[in-house]
Amino acid sequence: MKFKTFVGVSALALLSSQAVASAVVVNQGLSEQEVLAAQRGWCSALVEISKTHEEKGQAAAKSLAKNVIDSAYGYQMGAVLFKPTLTVKPQTFRPTSEGALSYFVGGDPNFPSDSGFALKGWQKCEIDNNAVFIAGDSASTIGKVHFTAEDGSVTSVDKTWGFVKDDAGDLRIVLHHSSLEYQN
Amino acid sequence: MKFKTFVGVSALALLSSQAVASAVVVNQGLSEQEVLAAQRGWCSALVEISKTHEEKGQAAAKSLAKNVIDSAYGYQMGAVLFKPTLTVKPQTFRPTSEGALSYFVGGDPNFPSDSGFALKGWQKCEIDNNAVFIAGDSASTIGKVHFTAEDGSVTSVDKTWGFVKDDAGDLRIVLHHSSLEYQN
Amino acid sequence: MKFKTFVGVSALALLSSQAVASAVVVNQGLSEQEVLAAQRGWCSALVEISKTHEEKGQAAAKSLAKNVIDSAYGYQMGAVLFKPTLTVKPQTFRPTSEGALSYFVGGDPNFPSDSGFALKGWQKCEIDNNAVFIAGDSASTIGKVHFTAEDGSVTSVDKTWGFVKDDAGDLRIVLHHSSLEYQN
Amino acid sequence: MKFKTFVGVSALALLSSQAVASAVVVNQGLSEQEVLAAQRGWCSALVEISKTHEEKGQAAAKSLAKNVIDSAYGYQMGAVLFKPTLTVKPQTFRPTSEGALSYFVGGDPNFPSDSGFALKGWQKCEIDNNAVFIAGDSASTIGKVHFTAEDGSVTSVDKTWGFVKDDAGDLRIVLHHSSLEYQN
Repeated sequence: MKFKTFVGVSALALLSSQAVASAVVVNQGLSEQEVLAAQRGWCSALVEISKTHEEKGQAAAKSLAKNVIDSAYGYQMGAVLFKPTLTVKPQTFRPTSEGALSYFVGGDPNFPSDSGFALKGWQKCEIDNNAVFIAGDSASTIGKVHFTAEDGSVTSVDKTWGFVKDDAGDLRIVLHHSSLEYQN
Repeated sequence: MKFKTFVGVSALALLSSQAVASAVVVNQGLSEQEVLAAQRGWCSALVEISKTHEEKGQAAAKSLAKNVIDSAYGYQMGAVLFKPTLTVKPQTFRPTSEGALSYFVGGDPNFPSDSGFALKGWQKCEIDNNAVFIAGDSASTIGKVHFTAEDGSVTSVDKTWGFVKDDAGDLRIVLHHSSLEYQN
Repeated sequence: MKFKTFVGVSALALLSSQAVASAVVVNQGLSEQEVLAAQRGWCSALVEISKTHEEKGQAAAKSLAKNVIDSAYGYQMGAVLFKPTLTVKPQTFRPTSEGALSYFVGGDPNFPSDSGFALKGWQKCEIDNNAVFIAGDSASTIGKVHFTAEDGSVTSVDKTWGFVKDDAGDLRIVLHHSSLEYQN
Repeated sequence: MKFKTFVGVSALALLSSQAVASAVVVNQGLSEQEVLAAQRGWCSALVEISKTHEEKGQAAAKSLAKNVIDSAYGYQMGAVLFKPTLTVKPQTFRPTSEGALSYFVGGDPNFPSDSGFALKGWQKCEIDNNAVFIAGDSASTIGKVHFTAEDGSVTSVDKTWGFVKDDAGDLRIVLHHSSLEYQN
């Protein structure tokens, strides 16, 4: 509202802020901090899956990855809009959690081209956002994500994420488009 | 997302927060502060209309009220869900801005029962929220609003407001239900 | 988008609508039909609680009312903005489910002024909306609700409801302001 | 709400649907049809810019493209999350409308690597959605888009769009990530 000139009445402001102190506030909005934390959570989970694979093998990594997908993606809403970095036709998109799990840890005969992106020994995962858009209940980000491999080499991808907040107040990825950088 | 255990990687957090510093953030969400400011804006505008009426007459008060309604309510979206405190059938609800203006300043032959709620010499308007609900792009509040008249007497109403943020980033009232306290 | 003039390319439209036939659609929006059904559900539940009270007593009515509140209101989100028709200070608002239950069926020593609104032998509950506002994930309605008692007399209230859709796709009441008609 | 068993009271349903006939409905939600129309609008605009370039030259194409960007993207909200198909570092992302315009029609010395994607003589643009997600006020789509060149060759890209509805009721693109298919 544009009544900035009226808002300055300090006694009123004081009064109403005191009154508000006792009001219950339910906030289902989505803050920038929550979005950034969710991004960091994704990166940390990826590195953790890589580490688990190295230390405990593929089965343990798969179990962790399944847990990550179940809690961090929104597959229970019906579908996720997911285009992973390295998938090919006719399985480019992974609208089901099975397709996402196979992409991250491989080993699923239904997705023969998957070798397990999360098993590649990633040591570091860094986010470099270009822009963040918060539309109320949902948020989107676009930017670079840099993955550091065991030999120190870095792979950069262009990555878009879309998030919504679930009833429990946790952010879930409902959109994920990742692509290698274009080389002209 | 539930990866709170992973989020603690401090180097990463540091890195990504640095990176984020340069990201553009568009936030169309609606904060508690914005909601409280909009409520205070409504109260201040009411007192201002009363004061204008006293000092400059009904025409000036009407002109100000029209300005307030145009900028603080969402009539341009098609309708506002508005049940003022003192309206009666068959004009209980005021889905059009004409009906709102008449309620606040009276003098409209199309709304013969309106005497002008904002012209009653209000000196003070205080908000005492019971609860605030933010659903992302929209917010609702419920609570008491106390109006102090020239003679110091206080009228309390039960008031619900619904707000949305417009394209310009300003909150607009799209819902307003006000009622006298029930006397049993 | 404003490219209506370009949209008419029929071959394209045909192609894309065919293509879409196989796309998964997750729609968390909220339709007018869902809102009207939720309103009717509230009315039907009220009449059903009255009937249960008559036929099976207060305990059965209370059990049903609890079930209704748990599934139709949004108390699990933290609070509901609820101003029932007949409550008085200092318990005007009912931000907790206990307060709502007491209002509907009475008998709670913590809410001594409640006599049980849903136990009043309501035979009919009719909704007469003045306006409906759908903001995407949330919706609000305002209008009259008419309650017919056993003796055929009708009580009319001014009622505002706010709804959001939960993760399971069901609407929940997060806002409810009801008031007797103003008598001038 | 889960009161489907109560909703069947036909007299009530009839009554309330009659009553509703006269209610004003403001719906700011976003339908699947609107999303699909916006996608087709983008495709049609691209082909139209190509055709305008061919028939009237670059200046006319640029003027049309500017018009398209101004009305179909959400740059006036502060930024668009845009990763076009063929951009390279350090100008991979185009958060400003200048960057978008340059990508589509080239000729801007500030974006020396742009040759004008919309000037490539596109004859056809077809959308093949994998999934559509509607979150209330916003929607996302992911899928293939196929571009047919003058020589009949087809280029396919993986494309994600995010839309919001503006105050005027028009959808605007606030997110656009496009990438060439991964070749393993």
